[in-house]
Amino acid sequence: MRVVISLGVAVSLLMASSVTQAADEKQIKEAIEYRQSALSVMGWNFGPLGAMAKGDMEYDAEEASMRAERVAVLAKMPWEGFIEGSLRGAGHGADTDALAKIADNRDDFESLQREMEDATAKLAEVAQQDDYAALRQQVAATGKTCKNCHDEYRADD
Amino acid sequence: MRVVISLGVAVSLLMASSVTQAADEKQIKEAIEYRQSALSVMGWNFGPLGAMAKGDMEYDAEEASMRAERVAVLAKMPWEGFIEGSLRGAGHGADTDALAKIADNRDDFESLQREMEDATAKLAEVAQQDDYAALRQQVAATGKTCKNCHDEYRADD
Repeated sequence: MRVVISLGVAVSLLMASSVTQAADEKQIKEAIEYRQSALSVMGWNFGPLGAMAKGDMEYDAEEASMRAERVAVLAKMPWEGFIEGSLRGAGHGADTDALAKIADNRDDFESLQREMEDATAKLAEVAQQDDYAALRQQVAATGKTCKNCHDEYRADD
Repeated sequence: MRVVISLGVAVSLLMASSVTQAADEKQIKEAIEYRQSALSVMGWNFGPLGAMAKGDMEYDAEEASMRAERVAVLAKMPWEGFIEGSLRGAGHGADTDALAKIADNRDDFESLQREMEDATAKLAEVAQQDDYAALRQQVAATGKTCKNCHDEYRADD
């Protein structure tokens, strides 16, 4: 009887832990998908600003302002998706370029986030002024804050 | 940065091609991915509002206000991704739940978009008032505008 009980306990513990494990893995995959989606939507909306700044697309003050406003709001969104256990090599099985070293450099990672958020907030302000030269400058400054973080914490492959 | 630039080029090509010729397969796939990402990021941010309204998550006025503000901005984003040739069954090979009949009902589809955008704008206003009963009501009203469009134009399978 003692054996039966201990087996029962073992089985229920196993079931409980597998349920917990599954839920965690699901949450991790959703968080990865969320941050990737947020960054991708931000990239899509930053695209026309980059193209206007480069002269690949005709400058349109109204569109620039609309895109910049969106980018500034989107810039705050991805970060909550970088949850524990969701970085590359953490065994979740999802594709992610977010390097494991983010975990050991949270302060720096967050500081780079703030720089990007500040740059996009300024971008939204500048884009309202209908000043192409100022827009170009701030698009470049914003792009640099993207690159700073990608160079450090995003995989190249 | 490489990704940002190529997206920018893709967007300007998309805009040019809407006048002259249909978008190519790569552009169609990017547009599908964009709208799906935008809708998914909106869903992620609407989630806590739904959970608070249902009593599954403790009401937090600050979080509710932040989420509602995001949702209102995101609500304007997905639509530019529903480009010609990107609906289900159009031979692009990408997975999409966007039914082909959207093409024959653009006015109705856009009218449902406007209803959702209006509901989220009101949601963002209401969420600032720290009035839980009013928030619940507007979360439900907003959810209904999502459902109205999904029932009509999103595949069930």
